[in-house]
Order: sequence, then C-alpha cells, then structure tokens
Amino acid sequence: MKVKSRFGPLYNEFEIGEVDYFAKDSKLKLSSGIEIDNFPIAYQTYGKLDAKKSNAILICHALTGDQYVASKNPVVQKDGWWDFMVGSGKPIDTDKFFVICSNIIGGCMGSFGPKSIDPKTQKPFAQTFPFLTIYDMVRAQNLLIESLGIERLHAVIGGSTGGMQVLAWGVLFPHKINVLIPMSTSYRHSPQNIAFHEVGRQAIMTDPDWCDGYYLSYKKFPKNGLALARMTAHITYLSENALQSKFGRNLKNKSGFSFSAKRDFEVENYLHYQGNRFVERFDPNSYLIITRAVDYFDLETDFEGNLSKAFFELSKNKSCKVCVISFSDDWLFPPSESKKLTHSLSACDVNVSSVVIESSGGHDSFLLKNNIFEKTISGLLIEK
Amino acid sequence: MKVKSRFGPLYNEFEIGEVDYFAKDSKLKLSSGIEIDNFPIAYQTYGKLDAKKSNAILICHALTGDQYVASKNPVVQKDGWWDFMVGSGKPIDTDKFFVICSNIIGGCMGSFGPKSIDPKTQKPFAQTFPFLTIYDMVRAQNLLIESLGIERLHAVIGGSTGGMQVLAWGVLFPHKINVLIPMSTSYRHSPQNIAFHEVGRQAIMTDPDWCDGYYLSYKKFPKNGLALARMTAHITYLSENALQSKFGRNLKNKSGFSFSAKRDFEVENYLHYQGNRFVERFDPNSYLIITRAVDYFDLETDFEGNLSKAFFELSKNKSCKVCVISFSDDWLFPPSESKKLTHSLSACDVNVSSVVIESSGGHDSFLLKNNIFEKTISGLLIEK
Repeated sequence: MKVKSRFGPLYNEFEIGEVDYFAKDSKLKLSSGIEIDNFPIAYQTYGKLDAKKSNAILICHALTGDQYVASKNPVVQKDGWWDFMVGSGKPIDTDKFFVICSNIIGGCMGSFGPKSIDPKTQKPFAQTFPFLTIYDMVRAQNLLIESLGIERLHAVIGGSTGGMQVLAWGVLFPHKINVLIPMSTSYRHSPQNIAFHEVGRQAIMTDPDWCDGYYLSYKKFPKNGLALARMTAHITYLSENALQSKFGRNLKNKSGFSFSAKRDFEVENYLHYQGNRFVERFDPNSYLIITRAVDYFDLETDFEGNLSKAFFELSKNKSCKVCVISFSDDWLFPPSESKKLTHSLSACDVNVSSVVIESSGGHDSFLLKNNIFEKTISGLLIEK
Repeated sequence: MKVKSRFGPLYNEFEIGEVDYFAKDSKLKLSSGIEIDNFPIAYQTYGKLDAKKSNAILICHALTGDQYVASKNPVVQKDGWWDFMVGSGKPIDTDKFFVICSNIIGGCMGSFGPKSIDPKTQKPFAQTFPFLTIYDMVRAQNLLIESLGIERLHAVIGGSTGGMQVLAWGVLFPHKINVLIPMSTSYRHSPQNIAFHEVGRQAIMTDPDWCDGYYLSYKKFPKNGLALARMTAHITYLSENALQSKFGRNLKNKSGFSFSAKRDFEVENYLHYQGNRFVERFDPNSYLIITRAVDYFDLETDFEGNLSKAFFELSKNKSCKVCVISFSDDWLFPPSESKKLTHSLSACDVNVSSVVIESSGGHDSFLLKNNIFEKTISGLLIEK
C-alpha cells in the first residue's frame, strides 16, 4: 500500500509494507451518536493462530503508537516499539501466541482517521472526522477480532492510552478475555493531564500552517505546533530523575553559556530532537482526535461515580484475571491511581493483582527493557 | 509616567503611578561581559526608613512579578501581589520596616529591559538587549540599595525566581544582610524546569507575530505564543491536587462533551484565562531574558560542584540567619531541593533553619494566605 507523505505519513509516497486491511459492511455507532461503516483498520499479526483460536493476544498501542509492535516501522524505519517484549522466545512468545495489534481508529497509520479520504468529498476528512472515545476505539478492535473468527482473547495488554483501551475491553467485552493487563494507566485522565493535552492542541491550532485543520488541502503542515505539542508531552513522559541522570544541566557547548535564546542545554536539544522526529510521522488532526478521546476517558463518572460498578460484568467472568502494572517514577499515571483502580477491581470481586515496578524511566518505563517487568508479563500469560 | 501599551504595558498609554526611578552613572558589568550604565530601576517602597537606616527589607519578586508588592498594580488594576503579607500590622509590618521592591532588570515594568529605548537607535532594544543572570539582577538591586544610603539590609526575602535572588544576595553581598529568606526555590534550575521554560520560549519564537523579536517595530505582538508559554508554565505552578480540588474533571457545559477540540473542561478554560490575562501585562522579550537567567542559575556548578562553598563568605557573617521555606506540594521547586540547600548551608556553619509548610496550592503557595506561613515570616523578622 502506498501512502503519500511530506512530513512522514502525510505527503510523500512510501511503502507501508505488509499491512493487512480490514473493512467490512458492519456499522459502528460512535459515542457521539455518529455512525460509521466500511472503514479500514490497519493491523499487524505475529505468530500463528492455533486451531482452537484460543491463543490470541491483543496488544493496544499508546497515544502516538502504531501496529508495528515487533516488526520494522516502515515510516521511521525503526524496530517495532515493543520489540524486546514480543517475538520468538520473548516474554510474549510468538511461538505460543498469536499477537495482534491494530492502529486505533482516529490514528494515522492506515486505520480510519482524519487523513482518510471522505468518499463524499474525495478529500481527507480533516476537521470533519468525528471525535471519538476510547470505547469507540475498542469497539472497532472488537470488529477486527470478530472478523478474524476469534471469540475469546487469551489476553489484552496495553500501556498508557493502550491501558485505557485494556480497561475498556474489560467493561465492554468482559466475557471475551482471560487476562487483562493495563499498564502505566488510569481509570480516568486527570485534570493536570487534560491541561497538558490542551497546551499541545493549542500549539497545533495556533500554528499559522494549521489552516483550520485543512492543511493537507493547502499543502501546508503545522510542524512547529505539532513539534511543540510533542516537546511538552515528552517532558511528562520522563521523570525529573530520568532527565537529571540523562542530561542533568549539561551544556551543548562545553565552553559556556551562549547568553542568547539558543539551545544551551542538552535537555533542550533532546526535546527539539523529539519534536522534530515526531512531525515526520504523525498527523496533527489525529493528535487532536486521540488526545481528546483520552481526556474524555473516565470510568468513574461513566459508572455513577462508583468505579467498582464499571467492573461488575467483568466480575462474573470467573476465569479472567487482571494485573494492574505501574512504575514507581511515573508521574503522568502515578502508582497511586493504579492503587485506586486495583482496589475498585478487588472491591467487586475481580481476580486482580497489582505490581509497582521500581523504575527510572518515568511514564515511558513500559517501553523500556526491564527484567522484572518482562518476567511479570510472561508469568501472567502462562495458561492454567 | 506614561507607558505605551496595546496588550498591556506595551502599546496603550496608561498611568503607571507613583514609581520612583533610579538611574545613575555607575557602570554595571554583566555576567556576559557586556557593560551597561545609566539604566533605570523602577521600584516601590512601603513604610519609613529609620534614622539609622537599619530597618530596610528588600523583597525580590518572582519570574513575572513586579514592584507592586502591597499597592495597586497600575497595569492590571489589582491589589499588590503580596498584599496580605506586607503592610501596617501585617507579617512584614510597614509600621516597623521600610520595604523596598524593585522591578528586576530584564523585566517590563519600568526597569531596564528589552522594551527600553536604546539611545543609539531610538528604538526598543528588543533582541539586542543583553541576556542576564540572576547575579546581574542582584548587582543592580545592590546599586539601588546603595543609592538609598542603606549599608545593611535587615532582610532579603523572595519566592521562586525571587528566592534565587535571595540566595545570590547571600553569595554576592554576604556582609550586608541580617536575615535571608529564600522561599519555594532552589540552588539551581532543574533539567525538567529548563525543559518547561524551553517549551515556553519556543511557543513565543514560533508565533508568526514574533518577527524575530522586533514585534514592536512591526506593531505586532506574539500573543498566542506568549499565552501558550503562560499556560504551560501555569500547570507547573499548581499541584495535581490543587487542580483536582479546584476543577476536577468538571465540564464547562453540564450537558456533556462537545465532541470537538473546543474547551470542554473547566481546567482548560482556566488555563486559557491565565494565558489571556498574561498577554495584557507581559513583554515576550522579557519572558525570554528572565527565563534564561533562571535556567542559568546554578550555585553548585558556579562553586566547583560544592554547594557549601557558595556560602563560605556568608558563614563569616555571624549575625546573619537564613531560613529556607518550602511548600509540601510544590513540584516545581520541591522540598527535597530545599533540604539539600539547607544541608549545604548548615555544612559550612551558616545559622540556618528550614520550614516545610503543608500546602495545597503547589508552587504558588508562597503567594497565598496561610497562617503558619505568615507567622513564620513575622517571627523571622523579629530583631534580637
């Protein structure tokens, strides 16, 4: 499949590789009330589905992640984002399990998203793309799983925004899962996190190349705004300690300060690097749609202010176990939020355990190799 | 004095009121090596200097603060920023003490700053204004104190960036002070804080109305960028708990989500309000100059990696006491940094105490009424 991209997946043509497409005539009613149909979901699989179709594991990617869990990402030409975790002989062992990861709807890696072509106008949806919830993303994933003939997933695993999807699986399809592993996530997006998202959205929407969201039609791209959104977000992905040990107050130029607004510190350089890499691969409209879906996520409010109620149906699935994983220095989704989630699951008699893993990588720790983390995941997947 | 201001102190004329000006022929060599002379320092005083000139207290304002500690700010027409702390019968009692606060150089409230007119070009300095350090700001304050005929200050008090100035007073003029009260501050700006500042600077400098810093000449104003910088910074001024108790996930419109990128949450509204208020009163070039000065502050590196060495001269002033004040939920300058500062002061035999005040206002707690805080300050100022 060829996708046009100028800054990454947008204008220049590049070979997206072995993507499978899913498009079927079933309708999906979104949380906003809008109905969509015949939409694509781009996904990747690893390993083989067994004859009983009982060894499938769904991995849910994070905010700006993609379906390339354990194979080279064709846009950035880098290894999959969870390469150390998924593969032959690895903690999520593809010799045993059939691993599926789909690009979330609203995304920009082949699934139905704001840069998809609207059949009515033959132009990208852009700002006419419907705003979504995490539930919508999960309902679309369920259609994919159904189309693959899978009735029950051995496990659903995901971190951060992916962890919210895992929890939504537990709420929407509680009888379809054996193991649920939400990682580095929460039952709701906090006001502080909403605030950071809003700064990112404003950075994009005040960029002069934003063009009210129709930048594609004007052959523009709000790259400064998108980079700024990423820079802000990236600060929240690392911990103060991680930044201190990675960069400290080291200067780019050892001879001293520039006495200017130029980048003097290595940490500034790093942020700019992250911002610049991001604009090569991500769509600004997708960033708006997905951050909004995350902001809207709040299982507590959705279940009358009683988080346990969210898991009432799940508690009836006695063969299901849940393990809530958090990382000690994650300040975006701190262990305290995982604790509340665990207590609420426990309170309604779900078979739940929780692990707080000592970390130095902040929120992004779930993307980093860690022996205890890997052993925890592989242990949880052992079939009874 | 009349100042032109369009967005606050920039274009429209407004009456700045009872500001005293200080301008003298003494030269000041800046940390960058550049020499400045004949520069104005705008300041306010409260109370009366006694005959011995022994009752003067210098208050150092924070990043975007000003000299209007306890009198109406003529730009925003609001009470002084520390009105509850300074005045007749208040913790810093103007019946007893002569209180001085000057706008820092680099600022935009009348002191020498980037919107000052360069005598050579008869235009604002803008980007030709020299970048500064906290030491430069304090050396300029010292010139003001000298010109007032004050040889010794009873106290120097300040929070955040103002707290860095207090520490710099202890380093540069250790024999001129009886009481030093650094609050909500640190001996150095952390990499995480530098990162947040850089996001703010980039927001300003990528605004199309930035005009390479010469917006005044083009009759433009990078208000979106400046507002975005303030929004980002404002998140760091409050704690997660403060945001949770102030706004939680409350919606602006009780009827539900807008399913759009518009502001749905009260916390978003609040951030926009803060951003919009800020552009009415602050100069973007000043924001760059001052954030940079704060980033450059690092007493530890300046004294060969040994923070105690910074206070070696201060330790010889046996009549001086220091009290380091921090607030429990300040994550921008957390109590842990104050602890290190206190230990280092103690290690070189400075008469130091420290107080961690239980708070719910985050970093901004030093700007909020608090009984224990007020009693701490008034107690520290009692003369032996």
